[in-house]
Amino acid sequence: MEREQYLAAIKTRMPEKRYIHTIGVMETAIELAKFYGEDEKKAEIAAILHDIAKYADIEWMEQIVLDENLDARLIGWGSELLHGPVGAYIAESEFGIIDEDMLNAIRFHTTGRVGMSRLEKIIFVADMIEPNRKFDGVDRLRKKAKKSLDKVMSACVRHTLAFLVDTKQPIYPLSIECYNDMMKREDSEG
Amino acid sequence: MEREQYLAAIKTRMPEKRYIHTIGVMETAIELAKFYGEDEKKAEIAAILHDIAKYADIEWMEQIVLDENLDARLIGWGSELLHGPVGAYIAESEFGIIDEDMLNAIRFHTTGRVGMSRLEKIIFVADMIEPNRKFDGVDRLRKKAKKSLDKVMSACVRHTLAFLVDTKQPIYPLSIECYNDMMKREDSEG
Repeated sequence: MEREQYLAAIKTRMPEKRYIHTIGVMETAIELAKFYGEDEKKAEIAAILHDIAKYADIEWMEQIVLDENLDARLIGWGSELLHGPVGAYIAESEFGIIDEDMLNAIRFHTTGRVGMSRLEKIIFVADMIEPNRKFDGVDRLRKKAKKSLDKVMSACVRHTLAFLVDTKQPIYPLSIECYNDMMKREDSEG
Repeated sequence: MEREQYLAAIKTRMPEKRYIHTIGVMETAIELAKFYGEDEKKAEIAAILHDIAKYADIEWMEQIVLDENLDARLIGWGSELLHGPVGAYIAESEFGIIDEDMLNAIRFHTTGRVGMSRLEKIIFVADMIEPNRKFDGVDRLRKKAKKSLDKVMSACVRHTLAFLVDTKQPIYPLSIECYNDMMKREDSEG
């Protein structure tokens, strides 16, 4: 499938605003892939599909978690946490994506995890810094993205946690494991 | 043992500044115990002993974790996380404290945990808001302490997490479990 076919396929599954966000993530992911030597086509398709489950029915997604033996901790966490893993399921089952790295980039784009690949980091970061995002500190993150993928990834995770604490939202265990791993690495690097 | 004997026993184990902090925690814990109908004597002694292991040797503390089958996740987390559980061990083995609630108040005073008792919350909060503490927002926490123990506890946990993220420090799993539990409760209470 080509870019336009993927775009047509997702457009019917989300509101206009989310579609515009997705285009932004795609463009940013391709830029980051060029910059950091990742496969641009993989980045493009993973970016297009990353939010494909964002507006899927929650009960249906929870059933997928059970039927497909996905991380059982996801039950009860709502669409914000379900749509990554279920998005990866849709990418594989409906779109025939078999590249595990692309699937993981979709799967972990909201939470992060310990030991993320370059492509996973690119999709996670692109999702936060794409041009339509407007929040305090986003320009600092965009600048960092041109210097070090690990450092911008770490800054994005810290920003996400600070936002969740500030807005009194629960934090998914994978996100803390990801954060702790990064802080320990940064510490050991001095 | 009386208050003066406990105070004499801890004074030799910590620098002057930490001893002054401990007196502050004791006074604040007694005030909170009075206010919220908790046993004042339990609050007093748990507060005096809460930091007894703060300056203990880390290797010795890690050995205690192994010998006494304490939470094995503590290994490698340093004095900041070890001194609560090891402090409870010292309180029991050296001072003969057998009240499980007092031991838990010492054990979890740094991390918090899911399902904290009133006494546990009092020691956790007193440790953060005692009169010698000086940080942005501490006065807001002190005011909250006079309104609702659960709300000030929740605010203290959020403050701790925000501080850890801001200073790039890892977050112990118990702290996140405690935070998530509180945010879910607050959410369900509206």
